[in-house]
Amino acid sequence: MDYKEIYTFLNGDLKKIEDELERALQAETPVLKEASLHYLRAGGKRIRPIFVLLAAKFGDYDFEKVKPVAVSLELIHMASLIHDDVIDNADLRRGRPTIKAKWGNRIAMYTGDFILARSLELITEIEDAEFHRILADTLVDLSIGEIEQIRDKYNFDQNLRTYLRRIKRKTALLIAVSCLLGAKVARADEYCQRKLYRYGYFSGMAFQITDDILDFTSTKEKLGKPAGEDLIQGNITLPVLFALRDQSLNREIRKVNGKADPEAFQEIVERIKAAGAVEEAQKVAELYVRKALQALDDLPDNETKPLLREMVLFIGNRKF
Amino acid sequence: MDYKEIYTFLNGDLKKIEDELERALQAETPVLKEASLHYLRAGGKRIRPIFVLLAAKFGDYDFEKVKPVAVSLELIHMASLIHDDVIDNADLRRGRPTIKAKWGNRIAMYTGDFILARSLELITEIEDAEFHRILADTLVDLSIGEIEQIRDKYNFDQNLRTYLRRIKRKTALLIAVSCLLGAKVARADEYCQRKLYRYGYFSGMAFQITDDILDFTSTKEKLGKPAGEDLIQGNITLPVLFALRDQSLNREIRKVNGKADPEAFQEIVERIKAAGAVEEAQKVAELYVRKALQALDDLPDNETKPLLREMVLFIGNRKF
Repeated sequence: MDYKEIYTFLNGDLKKIEDELERALQAETPVLKEASLHYLRAGGKRIRPIFVLLAAKFGDYDFEKVKPVAVSLELIHMASLIHDDVIDNADLRRGRPTIKAKWGNRIAMYTGDFILARSLELITEIEDAEFHRILADTLVDLSIGEIEQIRDKYNFDQNLRTYLRRIKRKTALLIAVSCLLGAKVARADEYCQRKLYRYGYFSGMAFQITDDILDFTSTKEKLGKPAGEDLIQGNITLPVLFALRDQSLNREIRKVNGKADPEAFQEIVERIKAAGAVEEAQKVAELYVRKALQALDDLPDNETKPLLREMVLFIGNRKF
Repeated sequence: MDYKEIYTFLNGDLKKIEDELERALQAETPVLKEASLHYLRAGGKRIRPIFVLLAAKFGDYDFEKVKPVAVSLELIHMASLIHDDVIDNADLRRGRPTIKAKWGNRIAMYTGDFILARSLELITEIEDAEFHRILADTLVDLSIGEIEQIRDKYNFDQNLRTYLRRIKRKTALLIAVSCLLGAKVARADEYCQRKLYRYGYFSGMAFQITDDILDFTSTKEKLGKPAGEDLIQGNITLPVLFALRDQSLNREIRKVNGKADPEAFQEIVERIKAAGAVEEAQKVAELYVRKALQALDDLPDNETKPLLREMVLFIGNRKF
């Protein structure tokens, strides 16, 4: 994706979102402020705010109104990542130590709670209770998705449907809601709202599948965390599901656990890749990209559409 | 407190709240449902819903409107207790194993997230965005209070102000907000709302101080957890703050840590009690009870006032 183009198009608004994120995480308590800002400054693609802003361009775009929505959604995402790192026992994210690694599980848990609460505080700048209802529903799904991820760990007998439902809850719904609320806050018409929601949902599915593929194909340097980490942690992602269809590979994969020998594990990763499992997963991601593009086609033509097209193409093919 | 009297007065509404709490915690994922209901069924005094209902009697009481507020506030309290047990490494609450003890920290963290999300979902039945704003602000304070509790652990040099600010955030604000939102949902006038908020705030302060006293004076059987547990965990409560003023006791208390020898620790607990620290803390609790009663005096007379009076007297003198 050409971030520069999007930056230019959004005319400094993304920079203002960044400032606002920083302002939202100010806290008197030093450890809380440090832990929150540590995470914020590690960067991130900020795709949720970008989706909010671009979707809002389909209505009456007023940055001051869109801002709390964009910031709120990024904060919800951050809070869920922080709790995620506690669950996954992850020490690195975006190449930096996680809050959990630096300050421990307890601080990580409450920093997540704090950031979530801040995001709820921000969204209440919007008077319309429908926004709060949509967000609350999304948070319920998000937490169920997280619990399902724990439940499904090292369960090598789960099927494709279980995986898809989990990533829907864990990732796709929040991206769909970013598009929906962006459209809503700008009072785009119902038709646009529905199409943008669909676009966001399919983009979100493609995003998570690509994320799961990158865990296999990328390098520690690019990921900011070790490759194959998902499988070691017992998270059964789409490439693994496809690889499990190979009988002999199936037996090997089932032996993987948190204490896997690094060299033997690396061999399994190579075999999963050689079995074509990554390509099959890639095809599913492409399917979702196509569905997102279809939803986009139905939207009225404007100068924002090409950027949303670029976003989802980037998402389906990103290398980091 | 005469619960029977309150039950009679509320005419079955508390029972309906209980049913609604159970309904709110239904989840497809078995572990999530089990963990949530495990907590719910362990019981509790449900003082937040009681405050909501009683405060609503100062306006136009409509149970169907008050219900989501009452349920939501109890769920927020439950979610915070569950995260609290992770922090305090607590194995028992209300005489039953904690979620953390039974299912581990990770499940406990997400069960807390789930219950919080459910509570937000419920409150969105109220169309007025002010409700969501008040709740979100309270959640920010709650999480800051929790972080402060971690920060202040084993800090024997903290002062009374630090303690009071912490319990305000951790406990009193949520009880104040229970009264406020109960009054608001029933459209009680502004004056009543303000007085009920004050009443709730002072009652909440008294409640937490009494809780901290009971940790010393009660028994494992009544508490459902070991006595003196707060101090062992490094939580410096009001009786400890008063005991620290005694030079020789000060030296002994500073030696306490998580690995304290049970017999030696028991002796310290006895010395804290003998030093009159509990009585001094009790006086502070009584001060807050008096302030709550003053706020109550300013409210118009009705059949609910005597019950609110009883509530705060119970809170200041409760034995469990």
